[in-house]
Amino acid sequence: MDPILVEVTRGGRVESAHHGAAAVIDASGKVVFSAGDIDTAIFPRSAVKSMQALPMVETGAAARLGLTDAEIALACSSHNGEEIHTAVAASMLAKAGRDVSCLECGTHWPSHDASARKLAAAGLTPSALHNNCSGKHSGFICLSCDQGHDPKGYIGPDHPAMRMITAALSEMTGTVLDERNRGTDGCSIPTFAIPLRGIAHGFARYGTGNGMAPDRAAAAAKIRAAVTANPMMVAGTKRFDTLMMQAMGARVFCKGGAEGVFCASLPELGYGIAVKCDDGAGRAAQVVGAALIERFLRPEGEAGQAVARLARPALENWNKIHVGDLRPAAALA
Amino acid sequence: MDPILVEVTRGGRVESAHHGAAAVIDASGKVVFSAGDIDTAIFPRSAVKSMQALPMVETGAAARLGLTDAEIALACSSHNGEEIHTAVAASMLAKAGRDVSCLECGTHWPSHDASARKLAAAGLTPSALHNNCSGKHSGFICLSCDQGHDPKGYIGPDHPAMRMITAALSEMTGTVLDERNRGTDGCSIPTFAIPLRGIAHGFARYGTGNGMAPDRAAAAAKIRAAVTANPMMVAGTKRFDTLMMQAMGARVFCKGGAEGVFCASLPELGYGIAVKCDDGAGRAAQVVGAALIERFLRPEGEAGQAVARLARPALENWNKIHVGDLRPAAALA
Repeated sequence: MDPILVEVTRGGRVESAHHGAAAVIDASGKVVFSAGDIDTAIFPRSAVKSMQALPMVETGAAARLGLTDAEIALACSSHNGEEIHTAVAASMLAKAGRDVSCLECGTHWPSHDASARKLAAAGLTPSALHNNCSGKHSGFICLSCDQGHDPKGYIGPDHPAMRMITAALSEMTGTVLDERNRGTDGCSIPTFAIPLRGIAHGFARYGTGNGMAPDRAAAAAKIRAAVTANPMMVAGTKRFDTLMMQAMGARVFCKGGAEGVFCASLPELGYGIAVKCDDGAGRAAQVVGAALIERFLRPEGEAGQAVARLARPALENWNKIHVGDLRPAAALA
Repeated sequence: MDPILVEVTRGGRVESAHHGAAAVIDASGKVVFSAGDIDTAIFPRSAVKSMQALPMVETGAAARLGLTDAEIALACSSHNGEEIHTAVAASMLAKAGRDVSCLECGTHWPSHDASARKLAAAGLTPSALHNNCSGKHSGFICLSCDQGHDPKGYIGPDHPAMRMITAALSEMTGTVLDERNRGTDGCSIPTFAIPLRGIAHGFARYGTGNGMAPDRAAAAAKIRAAVTANPMMVAGTKRFDTLMMQAMGARVFCKGGAEGVFCASLPELGYGIAVKCDDGAGRAAQVVGAALIERFLRPEGEAGQAVARLARPALENWNKIHVGDLRPAAALA
């Protein structure tokens, strides 16, 4: 049984509690910190988008297509579907000579409620560009086209572009990925179950280049720089990953994933972080991530205050009354 | 440690799991079924709105003001903010000689996304009528006005109407409610921590009238009839409580609450159900509720199929691909 990592309080009591596991691993593979079971495979979901974006950069596809840093950042995003996101996804597709009709992620209203309402108020409906994964998919299409593959069917595990993407994820996490540990993600691409230990080690390597081929290490550095310089691209208004990287800059390279996953690289320490909340709660994975970042990087000043707010967010009700808090539990102390 | 009650699968694996506690109690207070710790106090949140509505009916206020069954049902709701909900809340306030300006619940966009977008498309913004608790608050205002109290400040624990409401909740659950177990709810009224055992026993009594004063028993029967005849009022389009009572009619009287709470009366068996998922997950509380209803009522035909879908909901992604399921865990078998 994994320990309680996060508590939710109300009226001075613990109202709810989140169990989970967390691994902090250095680039040599040594465990710096762990809580709970870090060896059972979990689905990292969207938290590994930056690993899935490696082939697009390391092959030179991004450079040949002239992708900007904002576009590379969007390829690693689970975005809000705000106008800045859909415009950048459309631009990526145009650079690949394609358009929205190539996207195979499905369509949903923007995750960002105000953007959804704005779209509706304009008498419009969403397209696949508004899907939170459209940047990642646009990146896959860029890779396919650059490599001379018809992007049609790129979401399938046997498409040549997806094979490259899965191979990169496998190498980075040191895990064999095949039909035995494969599921289907929300955007229809394969998602693979991988132990937290391997994911965290992968992010330690991602942040340092340690043990990586030169092209891959350079691609990782390029993507980290692009994402941390464009934190609005990777998520959006009021979102955790955006706020964290706005506060911490290049000191933190992070990404959440569905069902309570959070991953990060802390390049200056050479650490990788991987978190899975057993119950799938994103709110808890974020608190764990912020608490570990606070613990290991000890940010000060405004950045320190911003990270503290993310590690111990206050819960306010509709009348802005402070009714409770989320807080890291003893296992993270 | 409470047992796992619900599992979330993907790709043939358990991706996430929800721990929790559940109590099924008969009207004499005997435990029919339990899982986990049913004696530690939890905040039932909105799941006890029907208990908080008792004073409005048992005092005769609802009858004197001419409240319809739909209006009484809305007083027990956490509604979607659809037009049918806001219209009924406005009608309740009008019958009390008041209007939206009296509501102290705060304002938010309709929980029902399509209704929020429709409002925005019409160039409108939400009012307190759209707050999911506006029906309950309108009921509190009806009670206040009928009893000759200025409704101003009705959300405070010492307002005379709130004292009546808290006294009803205390008597129904057999629990002393005071500042020692009090928190503040999302809509700013007091919420009290109460053991699942007491809550479930309260709902067993609610469904049978057992051990209740005649006026209170009659009020409970009136409210049950009003809610189960108007299941759209208590929640709304595609919502669990609405779907459950549409399928089961008066055989189930149920209500979810924030942070993973679910309560129900099964009048024909004289059972009350109370569920708390430790992590606060509503999706899991619903699966537990549906699984217990299925187990004890054994619905057949279309109702049985509807309850089975609620107990084992399929997870589909944006391309309508079936990627996993929620399912009751062994502790509920």
